[in-house]
Amino acid sequence: MDQLKPRPASTSPHTPLSFLERAATVYGDCPSIVYNNTTYTWSQTYRRCLQVASSLSTSAGIAPGQVVSVVAPNIPAMYELQFAVPMSGAILNNINTRLDARTISILLLHSESRLVFVDCLSSNVVLEALSLFPPSTPRPTLVLINEEPSSSSSGLGFFCTYESLVEKGDHNFRWVRPRSEWDPMVLNYTSGTTSSPKGVVHCHRGMFLVSMASLVDWCVPKQPVFLWTLPIFHANGWSFSWGITIYSLINKHGVTHMCAAPVVLKMLTNSPTNQPLKHKVHVSTAGAPPPSAVLLRIESLGFVVSHGYGLTETGGHVVSCAWKPQWDVLPARDKSKVKARQGVKVAGFTEVDVVDIKTGVSVKRDGLTRGEVVLRGGCVMLGYLKDPEATSKCMDDRGWFYTGDVGVMHPDGYLEIKDRSKDVIISGGENISSLEIESVLYANPAVNEAAVVARPDEFWGETPCAFVNLKDGHKISEEELIDFCREKMPHYMVPKTLVFKEDLPKTSTGKVKKFVLREIAKAMGSGMISRM
Amino acid sequence: MDQLKPRPASTSPHTPLSFLERAATVYGDCPSIVYNNTTYTWSQTYRRCLQVASSLSTSAGIAPGQVVSVVAPNIPAMYELQFAVPMSGAILNNINTRLDARTISILLLHSESRLVFVDCLSSNVVLEALSLFPPSTPRPTLVLINEEPSSSSSGLGFFCTYESLVEKGDHNFRWVRPRSEWDPMVLNYTSGTTSSPKGVVHCHRGMFLVSMASLVDWCVPKQPVFLWTLPIFHANGWSFSWGITIYSLINKHGVTHMCAAPVVLKMLTNSPTNQPLKHKVHVSTAGAPPPSAVLLRIESLGFVVSHGYGLTETGGHVVSCAWKPQWDVLPARDKSKVKARQGVKVAGFTEVDVVDIKTGVSVKRDGLTRGEVVLRGGCVMLGYLKDPEATSKCMDDRGWFYTGDVGVMHPDGYLEIKDRSKDVIISGGENISSLEIESVLYANPAVNEAAVVARPDEFWGETPCAFVNLKDGHKISEEELIDFCREKMPHYMVPKTLVFKEDLPKTSTGKVKKFVLREIAKAMGSGMISRM
Repeated sequence: MDQLKPRPASTSPHTPLSFLERAATVYGDCPSIVYNNTTYTWSQTYRRCLQVASSLSTSAGIAPGQVVSVVAPNIPAMYELQFAVPMSGAILNNINTRLDARTISILLLHSESRLVFVDCLSSNVVLEALSLFPPSTPRPTLVLINEEPSSSSSGLGFFCTYESLVEKGDHNFRWVRPRSEWDPMVLNYTSGTTSSPKGVVHCHRGMFLVSMASLVDWCVPKQPVFLWTLPIFHANGWSFSWGITIYSLINKHGVTHMCAAPVVLKMLTNSPTNQPLKHKVHVSTAGAPPPSAVLLRIESLGFVVSHGYGLTETGGHVVSCAWKPQWDVLPARDKSKVKARQGVKVAGFTEVDVVDIKTGVSVKRDGLTRGEVVLRGGCVMLGYLKDPEATSKCMDDRGWFYTGDVGVMHPDGYLEIKDRSKDVIISGGENISSLEIESVLYANPAVNEAAVVARPDEFWGETPCAFVNLKDGHKISEEELIDFCREKMPHYMVPKTLVFKEDLPKTSTGKVKKFVLREIAKAMGSGMISRM
Repeated sequence: MDQLKPRPASTSPHTPLSFLERAATVYGDCPSIVYNNTTYTWSQTYRRCLQVASSLSTSAGIAPGQVVSVVAPNIPAMYELQFAVPMSGAILNNINTRLDARTISILLLHSESRLVFVDCLSSNVVLEALSLFPPSTPRPTLVLINEEPSSSSSGLGFFCTYESLVEKGDHNFRWVRPRSEWDPMVLNYTSGTTSSPKGVVHCHRGMFLVSMASLVDWCVPKQPVFLWTLPIFHANGWSFSWGITIYSLINKHGVTHMCAAPVVLKMLTNSPTNQPLKHKVHVSTAGAPPPSAVLLRIESLGFVVSHGYGLTETGGHVVSCAWKPQWDVLPARDKSKVKARQGVKVAGFTEVDVVDIKTGVSVKRDGLTRGEVVLRGGCVMLGYLKDPEATSKCMDDRGWFYTGDVGVMHPDGYLEIKDRSKDVIISGGENISSLEIESVLYANPAVNEAAVVARPDEFWGETPCAFVNLKDGHKISEEELIDFCREKMPHYMVPKTLVFKEDLPKTSTGKVKKFVLREIAKAMGSGMISRM
């Protein structure tokens, strides 16, 4: 038995890139991408990806293991590059289109990116980012993605256009398979709610595993119609028009699946066209735990919500709130409460636990005892790029990845996130979860957005300070909202400060920048209620 | 980038054993097994498996890496042992209940099995198998599975009963996780249509991957109702009563999924109760390629057939006939023809190809050029136990596993198996596929079973010799059947010999033993048509 060792036939490295080749074989004539008036088939997408990968390897001179960045919204080229870049052997680095020139320059320098694909809408900010490079630092090659080939964008400073890379490429190119499944494949910068961006590196094996696990966990059928909302939500200024757009796309294309951050769910419920859907749409949500009141409203419209939990560091959802049949009979309010919990590991992931931050021992499974959420499984990142200290800090020899999230484990084995560890408010020695207070605030029909942070207090140490804005056409006074909270939570948890604030500061991925609010709270006097 | 190495948080070995723990968490109160009047929940199954694993490790003294065998039909204990044995760290070896004492003794000796779980119906044959052991050879411990605890079976020669192992076990046992995902987990003996049984060894990683890939490929929903027909079909004597049983179980339990060898599909279409189903039942079939006529009939009854291809050596299906939407509009006959092809690799498997047997180069993708089917992917076995020669022969340094199956690759990238390499008939220098002739014979409404082998011929070298039996109540003469073939295939392919034979010899897994038929054909005279 001991002589049976793995052989080449069973050790070929796993990579999600092989999925595209298979899709081209099986669904070659079926639509892969529908975008405005453009429709591609899977054969075309595969061919175009091979052509881009070929051009990267030859005319653009990109060597395997080098970083190639992309600054683009959800256009067809953006989808193609998810495959084409790693198919050339390069490491893919998507950069958020909402970042400013300074941040983009930091990321391009840190990643030592050799080539950047830039959508025409982002060309100015990227050129500005390059102008901020220190002198004598090598600059990446720029490739311009012109959505309309006839567009008059000058292309100044650009090596060539995306379409010319496609045209020049060889569709018989043999794409570069990883030598080891542990080879790096993607580099994603975290958006940094609590600290400066870190470069998360994932390998082919991890991306393969999280892809398979997500398909199993969400029971994705053959040929779903997927509305690619996920990165679009970065643009959270045009909430209303966007809510309408989503409804019209759902009906036009018969959408069956979509992803949506909680903020998008909220938009959809607030949209003027929020009539019940004609067919069921499966929505996967994650990010900040969705307030159960929002879940309740969105499901009443006909969306079937799956709620998951993951981090940039895990490459996707590794925990999901797997539904139990006995919950079907719960009243709607209780249903949305159990659904707001993060849940259990997805099939294929190894382990999820909540441990005492000091001792590292599992906390009691009582739904009350808090600890740090820890994870273990094949899609945990390789580490942070050029940051061995941060890498070692979050991944120790016990084999855990430490998330920095505070959670509890319920008696039924379901995880519930209580807070980011930095977002816990410690008042009079009691730990207060900012998320719990937010959850109560969201239950008020007038509240549009709510974010709670700690405000320094000479007597209590810290007190909860809530930043709130209201839905259009709704009114409520500070006192009424405080009273509302007082009815629904222990008094020590009720916000001592309540601030009406129209625009909550957000990261490029739509998460509230609590560190900015914390600064505001710090700078405030001791008045009970303020308005900004 | 090069400094980012895999760390313990992402390198925990994959194993399908962890699925059970998860099922107990999520679906703890839901039925896991329904068997006659017994119903277990997933919590109970998990607990019982832990108890058995604990007893194996302690009172039974089984050490990690030792082999534990099971001789039992599809009873609840059989399901539990699939988890419990490897959870104790031991390697699971399922032995077919239809084997004779001599074969069982060979397998137990070859595997050095330390303990054998024996269903009461198999106790005599296993005791006889042990009596055939050479003197002074250590014998395995025997554990008796009594379906009815009150059963009067003596238990002579048995260490204890299965239920006593459950009772004695500790349900808080920490199950033995593999140290490496490449650690062996199961040992399966091939049934040997062409040669003596070989012990196929699979590792945890391979079993994990094939489980995930099968769920994705078959789009298995949450909480399917799975009718566990697969190993039951070994008993192919009671076809009719069994056909009725399946129909009644489908209706009683609302079965949504089942597996069925082609022989079972045929039974179902021939069953006197073959009325159209009231709800759709998804059937996964594999083994010998199902004749398209059988597919046509079974689908008309309301079964939705998925057709896959795999071998003991791949642990499950690694190729499946992924359905293309454009095939929906084909006439039923053409539909069943495309469905009878084996298909494309499942998502997660690495590569499938057909190569020239001599040169090892891929054959033309023309649907005509034959070659050997070769496979590469994470669930290819570690190798054959104690048979380095056979292992090296089928897995070379090019990284392929050589299946010994002859196939063609269609222009659309779909694989079609033409024959086992040993089943090819070479007549006058032309290769003739026995499967193709069988497929034509099955298209005749009177034919129940058909098997074609080579018959030696002084002039032609070999000629096709068909063994056929007819459906009850049907009649057709040899000449008529030969004429039927002549209309539907090139003349050189038409069987020169046609033998009506009531009972075709079969392996324990229901495959026709062609080597027995070949012996018969060899011993025959040169008469054109014979009856046995």
